[in-house]
Amino acid sequence: MEGLKKKGGEKMSEKEREIIRRETLDFFEKAGIVLTEKEKENIEVASFGLDDLRRTGLQIVTYVNTGRYCAKELVLVPGQTCPEHRHPDRNGKKGKQETFRCRYGQVYLYMEGEPNENPVASPPEGDEKYYTVFNEIILQPGEQFTLPPNTRHWFQAGQQGAVVSEFSSASDDASDIFTDSRINRLAELED
Amino acid sequence: MEGLKKKGGEKMSEKEREIIRRETLDFFEKAGIVLTEKEKENIEVASFGLDDLRRTGLQIVTYVNTGRYCAKELVLVPGQTCPEHRHPDRNGKKGKQETFRCRYGQVYLYMEGEPNENPVASPPEGDEKYYTVFNEIILQPGEQFTLPPNTRHWFQAGQQGAVVSEFSSASDDASDIFTDSRINRLAELED
Repeated sequence: MEGLKKKGGEKMSEKEREIIRRETLDFFEKAGIVLTEKEKENIEVASFGLDDLRRTGLQIVTYVNTGRYCAKELVLVPGQTCPEHRHPDRNGKKGKQETFRCRYGQVYLYMEGEPNENPVASPPEGDEKYYTVFNEIILQPGEQFTLPPNTRHWFQAGQQGAVVSEFSSASDDASDIFTDSRINRLAELED
Repeated sequence: MEGLKKKGGEKMSEKEREIIRRETLDFFEKAGIVLTEKEKENIEVASFGLDDLRRTGLQIVTYVNTGRYCAKELVLVPGQTCPEHRHPDRNGKKGKQETFRCRYGQVYLYMEGEPNENPVASPPEGDEKYYTVFNEIILQPGEQFTLPPNTRHWFQAGQQGAVVSEFSSASDDASDIFTDSRINRLAELED
């Protein structure tokens, strides 16, 4: 991800990335989750190529991804949003199926279905057109939700931030389809 | 599991089971893991039909088991052992593949392979003949190990007890094959 460019062509600030990484470590500590030194050094900071990390981004520690199952911890700083996407079927197999379990803070999860009339969270200002699903699930620590495959969804942390365990079938981030056509996850992953 | 009988025909003590359940809740608290009230009430206490719970047993919270993936928390009281078993291939599919991640305490994991000459843990006294693999992996908090499918393994908690996250492919406990022929997991699960 080193080579990500700002819209103006400037490199995404390494300082910004480092600050978020340190905040992420604080969240793991608050959640009582112990990481190895190597995991701490390798925290993935995903900006989805939007260069708007604190509003639209996600911090990830992937524990295991064997081709059969996957387990990750996801960290969101207060108000940070993981943008709307779905996991399509591929190679004749059902798309990735995911269970989100809130460990710390609060998560507002939105998915296809009856839209909530007064959702607690709002899409990042200016990006509203890339958010189309508003069936709301609120997860407190200890609560979880399993999303059907190939279902559009997005989620946002509350004011405390959030730590979320993701249990799933095999993960292949490169195949995710984002509603926001500016997002090219493959480019970010390959960089 | 209500109907489990002591060797003498007496019902396994509900009091014993309740004491272990309370200790399990304490371990979750020490590990910083938040459970819902429903999960707390439904903690599975597995004695493997041996009626020797504090030495040979396992406490389990299953978060999700979708047929594609599974996530559990396992709790062992100090020195408690999960007896040797393997997850065989079934219906033409590879056996269950498991990742154990230590969250709290210490776990001594033994599997097929070069035996350790001075293993830290010992099988429960009197049951040595049911323990045949001694390739030792020690897991401290934050450390994990992924076991190949269909591999015999057993594990024991250190003196502090242990909380272990298990991430895996779909789980079907009834198909597990235990080295100890006295164990009939299916009977316990159906009871």
